Amino acid sequence: MKLNSQDLADLAVGAAFLGTGGGGDPYIGRQMVQLCLDEGLSVELVDPDDLDDDAFVIPTAMMGAPTVLVEKLPSGLEAIHSLQRLEKRIGRKATHTMPIEIGGINSTIPLLVGARLGLPIVDGDGMGRAFPELQMETFGVYGVSGSPMAVSNEWGDCALIEATDNKMMEWLSRGVAIRMGGAAYIAEYSMSGADVKRTAVPRTLTLAIQVGRVLREAKAQHVNPFEALLGFLPTTLYSYATIIYTGKITDMQRETKNGFSIGRARIEGSGAYDNVMEIEIQNENLIARVGGVVKAIVPDLICIMDSETAEPITTEGLRYGQRVTVISVSVPEIMRSPEALAVFGPACFGLDEPYTRIEDLTA
Amino acid sequence: MKLNSQDLADLAVGAAFLGTGGGGDPYIGRQMVQLCLDEGLSVELVDPDDLDDDAFVIPTAMMGAPTVLVEKLPSGLEAIHSLQRLEKRIGRKATHTMPIEIGGINSTIPLLVGARLGLPIVDGDGMGRAFPELQMETFGVYGVSGSPMAVSNEWGDCALIEATDNKMMEWLSRGVAIRMGGAAYIAEYSMSGADVKRTAVPRTLTLAIQVGRVLREAKAQHVNPFEALLGFLPTTLYSYATIIYTGKITDMQRETKNGFSIGRARIEGSGAYDNVMEIEIQNENLIARVGGVVKAIVPDLICIMDSETAEPITTEGLRYGQRVTVISVSVPEIMRSPEALAVFGPACFGLDEPYTRIEDLTA
Repeated sequence: MKLNSQDLADLAVGAAFLGTGGGGDPYIGRQMVQLCLDEGLSVELVDPDDLDDDAFVIPTAMMGAPTVLVEKLPSGLEAIHSLQRLEKRIGRKATHTMPIEIGGINSTIPLLVGARLGLPIVDGDGMGRAFPELQMETFGVYGVSGSPMAVSNEWGDCALIEATDNKMMEWLSRGVAIRMGGAAYIAEYSMSGADVKRTAVPRTLTLAIQVGRVLREAKAQHVNPFEALLGFLPTTLYSYATIIYTGKITDMQRETKNGFSIGRARIEGSGAYDNVMEIEIQNENLIARVGGVVKAIVPDLICIMDSETAEPITTEGLRYGQRVTVISVSVPEIMRSPEALAVFGPACFGLDEPYTRIEDLTA
Repeated sequence: MKLNSQDLADLAVGAAFLGTGGGGDPYIGRQMVQLCLDEGLSVELVDPDDLDDDAFVIPTAMMGAPTVLVEKLPSGLEAIHSLQRLEKRIGRKATHTMPIEIGGINSTIPLLVGARLGLPIVDGDGMGRAFPELQMETFGVYGVSGSPMAVSNEWGDCALIEATDNKMMEWLSRGVAIRMGGAAYIAEYSMSGADVKRTAVPRTLTLAIQVGRVLREAKAQHVNPFEALLGFLPTTLYSYATIIYTGKITDMQRETKNGFSIGRARIEGSGAYDNVMEIEIQNENLIARVGGVVKAIVPDLICIMDSETAEPITTEGLRYGQRVTVISVSVPEIMRSPEALAVFGPACFGLDEPYTRIEDLTA
């Protein structure tokens, strides 16, 4: 499947939705890929089921605080440099690239790399959403090593991280990314086609495009976009979706700390809500509570959308006074196993509450 | 020249002196090399003049805050791992290793690596003393690239830094060393024998051994060790040496910040001094002032020694109440060129005072 400009526009919206606030501003990534299309380059997706078992896939991504990206734009060559450095290290050319997360800019970086290098992009990712840390990958959960990993900046500096486990890889590379100015571009979790089929969350790029399309078409047809979205998601692996709150943002705390965007959003309810909702953020929306009671919790999606336009709002776009609709969505079963929850469940973010499926929380 | 246990003991003392307070506790490094001698391994020095032009030299060292080393001991394999990682990256086996600095533990790490790998150690280094940052090398001053560089910890984690300049190499690798717990082990500035001859400060390992021997023999013969030392140094490249202060430490500020040991020592004079001396520290002693007037300034050596025992005192060994003698020593001309001062002169440490030779300050 070759992507066109409309697909890119839809992807940017869908990736912002699946990013649950994180993953960086998709606008920047979209513009860089659009430039490739304008130059006549091709952005071609491949279904994971169609991968040869001995394909050699090198995922690519941005690493850092999304808030930094607003001021520090990429040159577009950083992730390519990292992929090529890894090819040199391993002594094998990549046959494909793919996203490590589907949120925000990281759904588009691999498209840019694929278009520029003439590599097809695997339709899937390793987070099924966005997460703040690099060990939080279904790839790693099911046994793929993140190392060796390359980290590059816009000046041509590169660090090759060879860590004994994926958490140490995250820890060391984060130190490098911080010193590269808070945002860097990486290649990691190189693996075979067989490993992709076994460990990736499948078809999340086309899912993001579909989410964007559903919202766009609903608005064009003057249909309620939230209803259209809640009608569409049950036909996907993200099969349960529900509105958990509507209201107005009345307080927003946000800081860039240890290389992450950390924050808390306070939303005062409209209509039937007795208590305010508080959402805690580490790059992504992690937990939503109303009066101290959990309404949705990581890894299930917590998406804050503009109530007027049905646009997903990223962490750095949240503002006092916005009217918002908060939607929670179930994630695929590959992300809900005990092994997966041990790597990106609530305890991994310092949350005391146990993971409870959104289906059960709203039952 | 093969080193014996007595040489090692003398080296530890002389390297603490030349380290001007920095470079880490030489005791730890000495014990690790002694263990090699006990096992029958050989520690062999080679004069730089005897190097083949096409020899391939990979220097090795510890990187981090000396204060951390007191609690976080090395396994002894870290620097070997870094050297071997660099060999693999470059595709060539090292024929020699050597120190990047002559201060403290970094005079001994290459001896350990050389003994374990059966490599001779070049008698010389790239700082002619100790400095806190990795771009502060005569190697780099005269055109050798520090990258590629390997950074390893005791667990087997490794980062390969490929930076566009030596200052960026320092900046990125420091981030990694901090995240490895504040002390890591490195291989960098790989170069030919011809480059060593052109850029190294020569014969500083044997100089350190001689300094230790002079102090030891003076004490054994009940000769004033300070007089013996001041009599010996004029026969070396470090040709001017003078006592700039004697007194008692009355205040000591010290903190570990951004991966460095930062501090300030206040010494109240005994005898003829009207004003106190203040010494500013970034891992090493950088500047000595009395009543605001500069008495000695980097890169010339400022060495704080115990007035009773004539033992050099490292930064982390300074204590309230110690009676100390402060000696300043001129450095070789290769370290005083405009190019050298641009890399490790006073301005590089944020000092406002211009560099003035110790000969001129005491004239």
